[in-house]
Amino acid sequence: MFENLLTNQDSWLNGKGPSSEIVFSSRVRLARNFADKVFPSRAATSVKEDIRNTMEEIYSRVSALRGSTFVRMEDLEELSRQFLLERHLISQEHMASPKGKGLIVSADERIALMINEEDHLRMQVITSGFDLAACWQVLDGIDTELSGMVNFSFLPDLGYLTSCPTNVGTALRASCMLHIPALVLTKRINKILELLVKISFTARGLFGEGTQALGDFFQISNQGSLGLSEGELIDNLSGVVNQVKEQEIDARDNLLKKYKFSLEDNVWRAFGVLKNCRLIGSKEALSHLSMLSLGLDLGIIKGIKREVINSLFIIIQPAHLQRIEGKLLKEEERDYIRASILRERLVFED
Amino acid sequence: MFENLLTNQDSWLNGKGPSSEIVFSSRVRLARNFADKVFPSRAATSVKEDIRNTMEEIYSRVSALRGSTFVRMEDLEELSRQFLLERHLISQEHMASPKGKGLIVSADERIALMINEEDHLRMQVITSGFDLAACWQVLDGIDTELSGMVNFSFLPDLGYLTSCPTNVGTALRASCMLHIPALVLTKRINKILELLVKISFTARGLFGEGTQALGDFFQISNQGSLGLSEGELIDNLSGVVNQVKEQEIDARDNLLKKYKFSLEDNVWRAFGVLKNCRLIGSKEALSHLSMLSLGLDLGIIKGIKREVINSLFIIIQPAHLQRIEGKLLKEEERDYIRASILRERLVFED
Repeated sequence: MFENLLTNQDSWLNGKGPSSEIVFSSRVRLARNFADKVFPSRAATSVKEDIRNTMEEIYSRVSALRGSTFVRMEDLEELSRQFLLERHLISQEHMASPKGKGLIVSADERIALMINEEDHLRMQVITSGFDLAACWQVLDGIDTELSGMVNFSFLPDLGYLTSCPTNVGTALRASCMLHIPALVLTKRINKILELLVKISFTARGLFGEGTQALGDFFQISNQGSLGLSEGELIDNLSGVVNQVKEQEIDARDNLLKKYKFSLEDNVWRAFGVLKNCRLIGSKEALSHLSMLSLGLDLGIIKGIKREVINSLFIIIQPAHLQRIEGKLLKEEERDYIRASILRERLVFED
Repeated sequence: MFENLLTNQDSWLNGKGPSSEIVFSSRVRLARNFADKVFPSRAATSVKEDIRNTMEEIYSRVSALRGSTFVRMEDLEELSRQFLLERHLISQEHMASPKGKGLIVSADERIALMINEEDHLRMQVITSGFDLAACWQVLDGIDTELSGMVNFSFLPDLGYLTSCPTNVGTALRASCMLHIPALVLTKRINKILELLVKISFTARGLFGEGTQALGDFFQISNQGSLGLSEGELIDNLSGVVNQVKEQEIDARDNLLKKYKFSLEDNVWRAFGVLKNCRLIGSKEALSHLSMLSLGLDLGIIKGIKREVINSLFIIIQPAHLQRIEGKLLKEEERDYIRASILRERLVFED
């Protein structure tokens, strides 16, 4: 499977979705549990293997999952698991303790099903740009088809039962990854984050829960799913994301009006460093890529392909670098390879 | 005169002198006073004007000064005076209070005579690279010829009398401008500076007394001139400069051996910033130019002409930028023009 992952041009990183100059990606996930099995945290290995075997048997009968890849997590080396984490296909928890866990990934990486993570099934659909409805449509289809094959744990009054009570109900979480450098530069981000928490939305960094907001990326998602329908949850999140997006557009306009030269300077310096450095860490690279991306959005810099920058956000991560080189690398070696890749891929095209 | 100054390709900035990868320039100056006139600090304006008139009459009869330009300092606007300061043709003092002062500059800028600075005459010869003897030969010739035309203040026991007692004797000061980034990077510079003071040598920054050591430039000169002949003073300084030069070569070798990638990274990042920035202050520019210059010396970066970098060290100064633009500029405007000039002139040539 890995051979395809790095070269796939139609993945959610292509930067071609709606509003993708600010909304990097949209993602919807559902948690599902088998009615007759205990939750993964309490289940014996044999129970988890049963569930995984069932999924291996049936997944290719789900239309959206045809041609997908099935993986037993413990069959993968740590580096490969980290690689999947960096590609947003599995969670930290799924990476850290692989025993009895599984993964199903569609060829275009838009669909990923984690087996025996916190719940028996965590199914996600991710897409480029701001398009939660498209994600939900695909995911709803998968859920419907799977429901015809297995018996999911569901109570009429509560909805779907999940390992963590916050997910009970629709068991749906929707999120958008926003690239909002102008809100960070103008420091308006802090007020926005405070407000989001007050109205029950969560903001996280590029790599999920507990991670830093690297490269000016913030993932905004709904908190809890009880008492609202799937459509309402998605509409609510869309509304909030739309407001943050408008704020970012306003902040960009302001920056362009008041700090044009300084902004151009920041963008071109970021390009200058990325295009010339010989050693660079991933945090610094993310920060410059963020600035370069903003420059592209604002027309300050032209001719670099958005999908190149988007894929670099992912490719410069440690496990990706090591897969590209085909061997384990020390930190300084990674910094060296990262710099080489950045110099090589950041080119002006017609 | 100013039209020529910026375009002169044969000046001391051409970077073609001996050891010019470390010794940027060599300079020797003599102080002389007219025997029958009070020192400038006490002289009435009419006395200073007498001296200046005398010099205006006779200078073109000195063979090395043929074709030179004569200037009354008070005829120049402040910007033009600052321009001359940035080109190392006059001192801070000569710039600050122009009344009654004069300047004679040779067409190639290698020779400059300040009239009525601290002494009636301060005559300097400056040359590219490490060649104090060449400077002294020219300066000695000028001194000899002038001594045949005017009567200099001289006592057989003491030598030449000067306004400041530290200059009495030969009234000679020799100095070399060293570019020693590796000694700065390895922090060996501090010990060397302490040692220099102990053995009666002075180290100053790029723009003379009291200025910071910007761009890793240090000017090393002799302290006092009493009791030694001109030849001995120059030999002593040459010896000291040679030792510092050897230390720098050793530090460069060490850096290349132990921190090759990090050094390459620093050099290329400096280039990346200079080649892409849209706003840059002169301190930051000097620091990157210094690193770029080191990269050129060590073969890390190739194809940029040394004389281009050397002239940029001077051209990016405020008065130069304003002369190039032909008008007074605010700080942000200067930062913008400075960045444009750097981007435009730093090109790879065959």
